[in-house]
Amino acid sequence: MKYFSFIFLIAVTFFSCSADNTPAIVIQTDFGLKDGAVAEMKGVIFKETPYTRVFDLTHEIPVYNIWEAAYRLQQTAPYWPAGTIFISVVDPGVGTQRKGVVLKTKNGYYFVTPDNGTLTLIAESMGVASLRQIDEKLHRREGSSGSYTFHGRDIFAYTAAELASGKIAFEQVGPELPPKVVKIPYQKPVFSNGKIKGNIPVLDPQYGNVWTNIDTAVFNTLNVKHGDTLNVEITHLDTLIYAGKIPYVKSFGDVAEEAPLAYQNSLMNFALAINMGNFASRFRISNGADWNIAVRK
Amino acid sequence: MKYFSFIFLIAVTFFSCSADNTPAIVIQTDFGLKDGAVAEMKGVIFKETPYTRVFDLTHEIPVYNIWEAAYRLQQTAPYWPAGTIFISVVDPGVGTQRKGVVLKTKNGYYFVTPDNGTLTLIAESMGVASLRQIDEKLHRREGSSGSYTFHGRDIFAYTAAELASGKIAFEQVGPELPPKVVKIPYQKPVFSNGKIKGNIPVLDPQYGNVWTNIDTAVFNTLNVKHGDTLNVEITHLDTLIYAGKIPYVKSFGDVAEEAPLAYQNSLMNFALAINMGNFASRFRISNGADWNIAVRK
Amino acid sequence: MKYFSFIFLIAVTFFSCSADNTPAIVIQTDFGLKDGAVAEMKGVIFKETPYTRVFDLTHEIPVYNIWEAAYRLQQTAPYWPAGTIFISVVDPGVGTQRKGVVLKTKNGYYFVTPDNGTLTLIAESMGVASLRQIDEKLHRREGSSGSYTFHGRDIFAYTAAELASGKIAFEQVGPELPPKVVKIPYQKPVFSNGKIKGNIPVLDPQYGNVWTNIDTAVFNTLNVKHGDTLNVEITHLDTLIYAGKIPYVKSFGDVAEEAPLAYQNSLMNFALAINMGNFASRFRISNGADWNIAVRK
Repeated sequence: MKYFSFIFLIAVTFFSCSADNTPAIVIQTDFGLKDGAVAEMKGVIFKETPYTRVFDLTHEIPVYNIWEAAYRLQQTAPYWPAGTIFISVVDPGVGTQRKGVVLKTKNGYYFVTPDNGTLTLIAESMGVASLRQIDEKLHRREGSSGSYTFHGRDIFAYTAAELASGKIAFEQVGPELPPKVVKIPYQKPVFSNGKIKGNIPVLDPQYGNVWTNIDTAVFNTLNVKHGDTLNVEITHLDTLIYAGKIPYVKSFGDVAEEAPLAYQNSLMNFALAINMGNFASRFRISNGADWNIAVRK
Repeated sequence: MKYFSFIFLIAVTFFSCSADNTPAIVIQTDFGLKDGAVAEMKGVIFKETPYTRVFDLTHEIPVYNIWEAAYRLQQTAPYWPAGTIFISVVDPGVGTQRKGVVLKTKNGYYFVTPDNGTLTLIAESMGVASLRQIDEKLHRREGSSGSYTFHGRDIFAYTAAELASGKIAFEQVGPELPPKVVKIPYQKPVFSNGKIKGNIPVLDPQYGNVWTNIDTAVFNTLNVKHGDTLNVEITHLDTLIYAGKIPYVKSFGDVAEEAPLAYQNSLMNFALAINMGNFASRFRISNGADWNIAVRK
Repeated sequence: MKYFSFIFLIAVTFFSCSADNTPAIVIQTDFGLKDGAVAEMKGVIFKETPYTRVFDLTHEIPVYNIWEAAYRLQQTAPYWPAGTIFISVVDPGVGTQRKGVVLKTKNGYYFVTPDNGTLTLIAESMGVASLRQIDEKLHRREGSSGSYTFHGRDIFAYTAAELASGKIAFEQVGPELPPKVVKIPYQKPVFSNGKIKGNIPVLDPQYGNVWTNIDTAVFNTLNVKHGDTLNVEITHLDTLIYAGKIPYVKSFGDVAEEAPLAYQNSLMNFALAINMGNFASRFRISNGADWNIAVRK
């Protein structure tokens, strides 16, 4: 009898503690932080799964900019452990036929989002293990059936919380779809005729650095070493916006203040900057699927 | 003896874990996030109750805008579980005779705030179970008695942390007051002569959508169905700012890009927007207790 | 046998729970919240130490403004409990010879940062117990050895997480340095010839209040009481920017709206404001090591 109550106490204790072992939820939106929308999402999550750690990726994705949402997921997800559940809500098509989905990647991450291009890059870099459409009749916040405009709160946050808490398994999200996400077309990094072409997916907005999608493997085909000078051209659609010679260096301190530099950014992609200055604003560079770059020695 | 140490260990373990079951604290201020004020409040809370989950509602309430503070509480609180402790610090009267209070609502939520109008809407929607004035001699951060200008940190955050940790019960906050909070007057939603009048309490600042306080129950008295056209007038004080015809639809995708729409927003209130555009900036609409709307078929 | 399994269960439970007792990590950067940099840092921390509570000080330090970083640490750290681990990443010299360090203060706080002036004020106010250079070969995120530009993520966040999790002790961070941090020179608060001189380290950016480094002990040498009028001069380098008479009061409500006031701010330092207005923008006051103030009766 005493043993029994011991076991009961231990079991309760163990259970309540190990609940703390749920994966993190990381949230990205274009809502900004001026109103209550993000706090509503976090309330829905906390109500379902109070032990789950909830983090912000960013809520400052430019409004309706699905391309940047796609980029931010690809940029940050690898720094989190497998099992992490990302919610991304940049959802101009809410209320239309676009599908709400959960993507499970080959390396074990989860992405809860409208399938509207947001998954373009993460599907390429992590691989699609399985894609399921959220059954919106089963997985929506209680009392939300009359609400059509905030799936971020009523469906995506709620479904992510159900997954994080272990109340449902991934297989219970809804019907499995073919393993193909909606993709936004863009210039992939390629080397030909002594020149690398690539895309400018985002700027580093705080400093005005120009980030490209040219990774180390492609860049190395140029056979450049630190100290070499590179010829760089940036185009928007087919218009040349910038052309110049820039030294390729290891870090910012290797050039004078106010001088331009080319370097490997913190994601190990080719990037441009001005030491203690702002490359993007000085040369009027922006970013997106239609901003491209070409680099040669 | 062995049994005793078992029980002791289990008790300690159980206690330290179940401490994790404290309610969440959710913070709202007009401080912004550029300085250290919010981090000071969180430090005070963490010191008192390190297991409590602490969330941000927003820190971007426009400076001294008590009306918007009132609205954000009403907007977001229902998405959190009962027991949640909200701190709201929009406090232009700090250091004057305005009272620091804790409101317990009829459905079991707590609001720690100056009683300066901030509780106008939540008192109406959730009902006042009990209102207590914070005894500032008993409930203030140690060493803060010479500080008069930051009650958000020294009194409100500290008292909320005491409540969250269970160190004090609600009844120990201070003397009970009559169950009447300070209220800001505003136009409630009413139907008469075929027309609904209401208020524009906030904008959806990221997208420029115009939100009203006209809820489903009042709106339904118009007998409108999706696809109908509505006549909308917006006034500031007694000046007409906007008049126009707008289709009432289910969601944004039901009208062309750049076209206006009327819809039920995510809080199930009547709202106006432009699909992929900004209604408020296009028609110079703002919000507050003195911005009103009238709608008829 | 049964006893053994009891003990095992209890031990596991106890351990997994008490892991929750790790100190908090508090992060400050100049990265802003528009991109993924802060989320990458938090991912690195969560991966190493999922139970640690992670808080933001601010990510809106003006870009490369080491002086303001120094101030924000000094402002907020005392409100957190001893043992708290602060990460500060305002790092214009990343990739140069500046050292990555962990400072342990005499009262038991930890600061993980480039030693570039960021520690100027906290070293003075809390005292240097020990300063260690981070051994960047031992303490860097796995797979980051080719990345030179984001030590905030690869070294500082990682090292802080190792410390918070208990995986390493402070003594294992790296070699001990002489107990002298890099310091930015500035005007300390002094009284002479009936006048107090001091510095304007920061503004209260949300309200435009002007904060000084003149603390109560120095201020009291003026023998001023509430209601007295003060003569105030503000200089930038050697140029006089503002001169005026301002009443010294207890709090904002003691003067009319739009009137200036002098008061003790929430950090118990001398400060200037306009009730319901913006002192800094009205008189074009800014802040930094080269902005000074003089006060006399």
